[in-house]
Amino acid sequence: MIKRLTIIGVGLIGGSLARAVKRAGLCEEIVGGGRDVAQLRRAVELGVVDRYDTDIARAVHDADMVVLAVPLGAMELVLRALAGQVRPDTIITDVGSAKTSVVVAARNVFGEVPANFVPGHPIAGTEKNGVEASFAELFQGRRVILTPLPHTDTHALTQVRLLWRATGAEITEMGVEHHDEVLAATSHLPHILAYALVDTLVRMDTGMDNSDEIFRFAAGGFRDFTRIVASDPVMWRDICLANRPAIITLLERFRSDLDALTASIRVGDSEGILAVFNRAKAARDRCYQKKEDNDSGAK
Amino acid sequence: MIKRLTIIGVGLIGGSLARAVKRAGLCEEIVGGGRDVAQLRRAVELGVVDRYDTDIARAVHDADMVVLAVPLGAMELVLRALAGQVRPDTIITDVGSAKTSVVVAARNVFGEVPANFVPGHPIAGTEKNGVEASFAELFQGRRVILTPLPHTDTHALTQVRLLWRATGAEITEMGVEHHDEVLAATSHLPHILAYALVDTLVRMDTGMDNSDEIFRFAAGGFRDFTRIVASDPVMWRDICLANRPAIITLLERFRSDLDALTASIRVGDSEGILAVFNRAKAARDRCYQKKEDNDSGAK
Repeated sequence: MIKRLTIIGVGLIGGSLARAVKRAGLCEEIVGGGRDVAQLRRAVELGVVDRYDTDIARAVHDADMVVLAVPLGAMELVLRALAGQVRPDTIITDVGSAKTSVVVAARNVFGEVPANFVPGHPIAGTEKNGVEASFAELFQGRRVILTPLPHTDTHALTQVRLLWRATGAEITEMGVEHHDEVLAATSHLPHILAYALVDTLVRMDTGMDNSDEIFRFAAGGFRDFTRIVASDPVMWRDICLANRPAIITLLERFRSDLDALTASIRVGDSEGILAVFNRAKAARDRCYQKKEDNDSGAK
Repeated sequence: MIKRLTIIGVGLIGGSLARAVKRAGLCEEIVGGGRDVAQLRRAVELGVVDRYDTDIARAVHDADMVVLAVPLGAMELVLRALAGQVRPDTIITDVGSAKTSVVVAARNVFGEVPANFVPGHPIAGTEKNGVEASFAELFQGRRVILTPLPHTDTHALTQVRLLWRATGAEITEMGVEHHDEVLAATSHLPHILAYALVDTLVRMDTGMDNSDEIFRFAAGGFRDFTRIVASDPVMWRDICLANRPAIITLLERFRSDLDALTASIRVGDSEGILAVFNRAKAARDRCYQKKEDNDSGAK
């Protein structure tokens, strides 16, 4: 049981966490913090949080746990605002999509990452933003990755696990750098490619009547891409900056693979093209088959 | 009313067309043709076609209309097999995802594209293949692009329009080359990028436990990509080869845009990154807003 939970940033993620935790009866009081008064007021109206304070120091006062659900670019600022304002035993965690940058932010503010700070990342979201779009089931069956450091306090880790367990999420632990590599691959690179593709297409002139034409004739493939680019550009800009090294490594690798595939298409190397397509489909089928097997075998 | 309709290739597309046309009561008899006996037998068992013949000449005998629903790589072969076997007034159409290559195949076989040949392309499909996956509603509300040539017979065009109208599709006409440019943008490039991305990720070693890890932690973005690569690799290989010029032009443009974006991320050019993401999202939101307005305004 958490007596006072403060969530800084009550948008889609922060708001959904508040709803889920409230429904699970895990907290006595949930306080919202942040800069967006309209958003925070709406959060109180919707019953997502019990009260709010735009002053970070007051919002985190006497909190048992503080969740940072702000954009990656704002993490250091918020940590600086709450430093010295929380109790020594207050547990802090975050929901940032990149973890190295959050750890670095904590080091910049505290000298070392506090033992009570548990970096975390729920792999969940929709293309909508804001508390209005939040819902208690957002994390149900989704994964939450926690990236504790060697000196992270065990009790703090357990409490953050309990928090996420209450949302119905499945919790995994891994190293900070490993997290950033995995997420660069599974989430950041796909988003970057989707944004780049849509931008390439809308800016070009192929003699189409207008750029709307590419949307009008969007087939299955492109429709999936355009759904991805409905996400918040600022959040994704922040992610690109925060997880730069892992993303750049992957972009370079992808570029060289794409160059090879382009060369195969250019010279009509039927076998070379098919090899790439077959490998991709085989890996996908293998993994989803396994997933289905696991799911059906789960009790 | 078509007395005898022959569909060469009774898979997902050919089978769904047969089902839709049969349900609409547009044909007296539907004949299946092709090489895959098991598939054709199953098509008869399922009531998708009335009978089949693996001999193309016999399958198209006395047909009023012939639909080529075979992979792009097989179009010329099939056209060659039916040349001289159809009546002079038999209408021929196809469902290939690229149109220049089909027109070239027809020229190779007949010297000039016959006036009764109407190149077409239904923009519909699922990631499943085969007659077993076919269903009458596949084309309902989807677009079918017809690319008649200047000398295409008006009556033939009208009949092919009626065929697709019966499936519930919305029919658009455009030039052969324009079709290939639009589809390279809206369908072919997205598929190629998705295959390339998944292949890059499964082949790399980022210290992940194994390549399955990227699927286990697949967030929204990547999940959409992996759905795309469930498509048939051979069909997509054929499309890459058939629509090479338009695809290569786009791949080159995309590569240069991606290089610029990569450079922005590398140097931390916040404005540069955001400009790309904002343009993409704005175009997407604009077009889908318009679509919703149109849809809600439609009677």
